[in-house]
Amino acid sequence: MNLEPKILLMSDLELDRARAQAAVDTVLPIRRYEDRAKAAGLERPGVADALCELLEERLIRSLLVPGGFAVEYADRLRERGLTLTVKPEPFFEGRLVKSPSEVEAITAALRRTEAAMDAAVGAIREAEVRDDLLWWQGRVLTAEEIKRLIARQLLDDGLIAQHTIVACGEDGCDPHNEGSGPLRPGRSIIIDIFPRDMETRYFGDLTRTVVKGRAPEALRRIYHAVLAGQECAFRSIRDGAEGEVVHQAVQRTLEENGFQTGEVDGRMQGFFHGTGHGLGLDIHELPRVSKAKATLRAGNVVTVEPGLYYPAVGGVRIEDVVVVTEGGCRNLTKYPKELEV
Amino acid sequence: MNLEPKILLMSDLELDRARAQAAVDTVLPIRRYEDRAKAAGLERPGVADALCELLEERLIRSLLVPGGFAVEYADRLRERGLTLTVKPEPFFEGRLVKSPSEVEAITAALRRTEAAMDAAVGAIREAEVRDDLLWWQGRVLTAEEIKRLIARQLLDDGLIAQHTIVACGEDGCDPHNEGSGPLRPGRSIIIDIFPRDMETRYFGDLTRTVVKGRAPEALRRIYHAVLAGQECAFRSIRDGAEGEVVHQAVQRTLEENGFQTGEVDGRMQGFFHGTGHGLGLDIHELPRVSKAKATLRAGNVVTVEPGLYYPAVGGVRIEDVVVVTEGGCRNLTKYPKELEV
Repeated sequence: MNLEPKILLMSDLELDRARAQAAVDTVLPIRRYEDRAKAAGLERPGVADALCELLEERLIRSLLVPGGFAVEYADRLRERGLTLTVKPEPFFEGRLVKSPSEVEAITAALRRTEAAMDAAVGAIREAEVRDDLLWWQGRVLTAEEIKRLIARQLLDDGLIAQHTIVACGEDGCDPHNEGSGPLRPGRSIIIDIFPRDMETRYFGDLTRTVVKGRAPEALRRIYHAVLAGQECAFRSIRDGAEGEVVHQAVQRTLEENGFQTGEVDGRMQGFFHGTGHGLGLDIHELPRVSKAKATLRAGNVVTVEPGLYYPAVGGVRIEDVVVVTEGGCRNLTKYPKELEV
Repeated sequence: MNLEPKILLMSDLELDRARAQAAVDTVLPIRRYEDRAKAAGLERPGVADALCELLEERLIRSLLVPGGFAVEYADRLRERGLTLTVKPEPFFEGRLVKSPSEVEAITAALRRTEAAMDAAVGAIREAEVRDDLLWWQGRVLTAEEIKRLIARQLLDDGLIAQHTIVACGEDGCDPHNEGSGPLRPGRSIIIDIFPRDMETRYFGDLTRTVVKGRAPEALRRIYHAVLAGQECAFRSIRDGAEGEVVHQAVQRTLEENGFQTGEVDGRMQGFFHGTGHGLGLDIHELPRVSKAKATLRAGNVVTVEPGLYYPAVGGVRIEDVVVVTEGGCRNLTKYPKELEV
């Protein structure tokens, strides 16, 4: 229990809105403390100087700041005699474990992300194949067009999507390539959508990989290995599990299915990202399910998104979102997994 | 001229894309330096530890970092013997003065912002007034509906808008209130749109204030004072002008027109934000045209957006974007200024 009063120091511009909306005990004008600093002889007091005036008034001599706190402010505060303790992420530990209403907000964002995925997959499904291209509504279907479909559907639902990935063939072999140009049959198309609900501010996150028409045997094998990797994570995740151990189990499953990871001809291939990450008010939160140290706790909401990427064959990534429970995890994602459409 | 090689230290996930896209001399895998730190005895090296290995390899003992650099990394680097010099913004001074192609990108973003403004103003113009409400296409016209129109138009044009303001009546008296609910005739409606071009990454920024039907005399007087304030800024801005002096001249113009600024009944009213800010790859850049110290230089691109806000009367803000020139400034914004629609 934290009995310290919560104080917000705001500019004139934000003062009224902060008073009306912020969940704090007191909103104070930064102007008041800038004026005091000026009265004390500083010609152009900065934010840190105004803060010092407030801290003096409250007889506070030591501060806890997040790891990402700006060094220019830290240096100024220390110069003025304050003691800073730097707390690495998570600064607000309460954000790690989601309340039922937070899980609900994430689930609501996910449902609408699924609707956008369905608009995308629907267009690919409806498209006709001609000259090694996809044709839809009289035009060659491109990654850009699918991204527009996704963005429009989300916007109508009150979500905003940025950096949506629609990556076909070679584009998909780089997990963060956003994709461009015509979509082609027989190649993997990775669709990764992670929009934010403009009202609740929570994120959804969903990835599916599809192929228009028949998938080559090599892609089918990759797809089933990734599915097996995801199932392995679902089985391993529970309250008390180490993220690193879950991630290693996924890596092992992919290897046992015949898929190695490493640098080939100067380029990474295989499974070279984390298994997942926390999801909430930020798209990437703690805990991570990766090689980093992190113990999973009931109420964590994390993505489970193994992937395999092999130049000249293609990339596959499949991503659901789960909430960690005492004995395992509950999948919040409902969207089906189907390779060929 | 900077002859130091530019090095990017990247995770495996971003390595290939960085090599393909980044304007640097070398892209190196952070993994290599993490491995060295481990070999040197650190069990779980952090980013700063990996960086130290690289700096040791390059015989670098001192660093220039931006003011916003994370204190946790700064502390770790200093602990390991590095000397840090903290440079406040602007860290990259080249961003202050825009090249012709940057001005072009901002202008292109502005044109499409104007098209979105036109969709918004067009709907208000077309709306019918009934029962002190605006009706459009069979429904009560709301701030939310106008924001959807704006977002859709921008999305189709390749821009993404967040936090668009459509604030009617009392909502508009708080300059950062995004606005909600039904729009009403005879009240000021502030529309502030600042989208980012998803391709060039440059921002546009445009504000207009309109009234459906006849504006009350008090609002008309405010509107003309704000216009006079903006004209005053246009006349004052030039290479070598002090942002603070321009801002004070605008303040004086508003006062001479009879509009005072200050706290009334515990709430700010009048003109209580800056006159403008730099615009570019960020929505808020240096230089500011405000009470802060800043000398304007030819090639700076800044907004000029005086406003007046009086509870029970309404808010008015009018915003254009100008590029500073040797002898004055050139207005990049073309959208008309018309109070009654």
